[in-house]
This record gives sequence, structure tokens and C-alpha cells, in this order.
Amino acid sequence: MLTKINHIGIAVRSLDESLPFYRDNLGMTFAGIEEVAEQMVKVAMLQVGESKIELLEPTTLESPIAKFLEKNGPGIHHLAYEVEDIEAAIAKLVDEGSRMIDQKPRSGAHGTSIAFIHPKSSNGILTELCQLRHKI
Amino acid sequence: MLTKINHIGIAVRSLDESLPFYRDNLGMTFAGIEEVAEQMVKVAMLQVGESKIELLEPTTLESPIAKFLEKNGPGIHHLAYEVEDIEAAIAKLVDEGSRMIDQKPRSGAHGTSIAFIHPKSSNGILTELCQLRHKI
Repeated sequence: MLTKINHIGIAVRSLDESLPFYRDNLGMTFAGIEEVAEQMVKVAMLQVGESKIELLEPTTLESPIAKFLEKNGPGIHHLAYEVEDIEAAIAKLVDEGSRMIDQKPRSGAHGTSIAFIHPKSSNGILTELCQLRHKI
Repeated sequence: MLTKINHIGIAVRSLDESLPFYRDNLGMTFAGIEEVAEQMVKVAMLQVGESKIELLEPTTLESPIAKFLEKNGPGIHHLAYEVEDIEAAIAKLVDEGSRMIDQKPRSGAHGTSIAFIHPKSSNGILTELCQLRHKI
């Protein structure tokens, strides 16, 4: 069902302060920063092998990432796994009794389809499924 | 410097309770359970793409994972990146002012050499470097 870890989402207070560790000290390939208005975050993307590290800095106090930081401090916010068929993956999880935050896929960045599994069904870790392109 | 995410270490209270989500619901390839006496943990390994998920259950109350669970509850304990030359990687980090928990590599599971970066130098996330085999 899963093909790989697509990305690890890390909540940070400041991209300026956190990016140098990943880009300069660890030497990951920096793939740019983009703003995701819907989530009220700026995202710095770094490639490592087949996966990415995504550093998430809130742009407003209402951002879910701002609320996460307030409660937990900086740290890992979610894990995202890539799937080939997100609708089939959701159907399997629901059939098996898993609770989804998103019962239907919604649009993520770069034309992806994404859906979050509820942490109650994923051992307390916010878990995202993502599919790179809709099947035709 | 880094070639890929080697594994994500997740602290759990019970392998029996947490393994089914990863193995059965997400369908990761289960690669077995082993005990790491030095860390006082039982580790369940699951493959996803080129990386692994490692579920860590403490075997005693003195285990670092037991202490983590007491403080934080179940969740992501550390991220481990694979490197080709761990001694060169440590030297680069130290040169650049990063603080290491392990200034010299020590033995990990399966003949690996590992070293942890101090969370103070890695944005609060416990970060492991690992090299699969010593260079000759």
C-alpha cells in the first residue's frame, strides 16, 4: 500500500533559525520555500534520499502549526507516506476500523491528494497519506 | 553527507498494541523483533521504501525509552540518517559548532556504527547518524 516515506513534517518557530542545521550542517539538498496559505505556514523543503524534510513555520497565530508549537514546542508534527491509490488506501483503513480526519482525499501542495489518519488510530502520531497525482 | 533516512524511532508502550497499525493497516513489511539489551528495548522493524520504522518498547523502567514515555507519552523518539563515513560526518558537525552526544561512533544493531547529535544542536529533535559498515 505504501511506497515510501514522502516527508517528515517538523514544526519550527523560525525557518531562518532551523534551516541551517538541515541544509548546512547535515548537508541536505534545499529545494526551496513555499507558502501554503490554507495551512497558514511557510514550508522549507529538503531532500534526503527518496524522502523530504519539511520545516513548517506558522505565518499567523491561528495556524495549526502555531497551536502545535504553543502546546508542544518545536518538534515532529506529522509523518507522510506515499501511496499509489489514496482512495483505495482510505477505504482499506476505514474498513479495518481506523478513524480518518479526512474521509475523502483533499488537495495538498504540488497537485497531490492527501488525507490524514486520526492520531487515535495511529498510536498518537499524526499520519498523512499522499498520492502524487490523481489516477485518470 | 546523508544518503537517506535510515529509520524513524518511535517510542511505544506495547509492541503488541502498536505493531498492527503499521503492519496490518498501513501494510508495511514486517522485518522482525529484536532485543537491544544495552538500550533495554525490544525493537520491531518495518520497512517502507528505503527506510524503516522502528517501534521501541522498553523492557525495564530504567530504559531511556521508559523515561521518554513517562515524560512525553508515546511518539517519535528520534530520526536516524544514514551516512557513508560517520567519522567524517562527526568531524564536520563538530567543526561547525554542533554538539554531539557521541563524539566518537559506537556500535549499534546489525554491525552499524552510530552517533547521536545533541538535541540542542538539532532543533530539539534527537538525531542519529548511522553508517552500515566500518570502512576498511
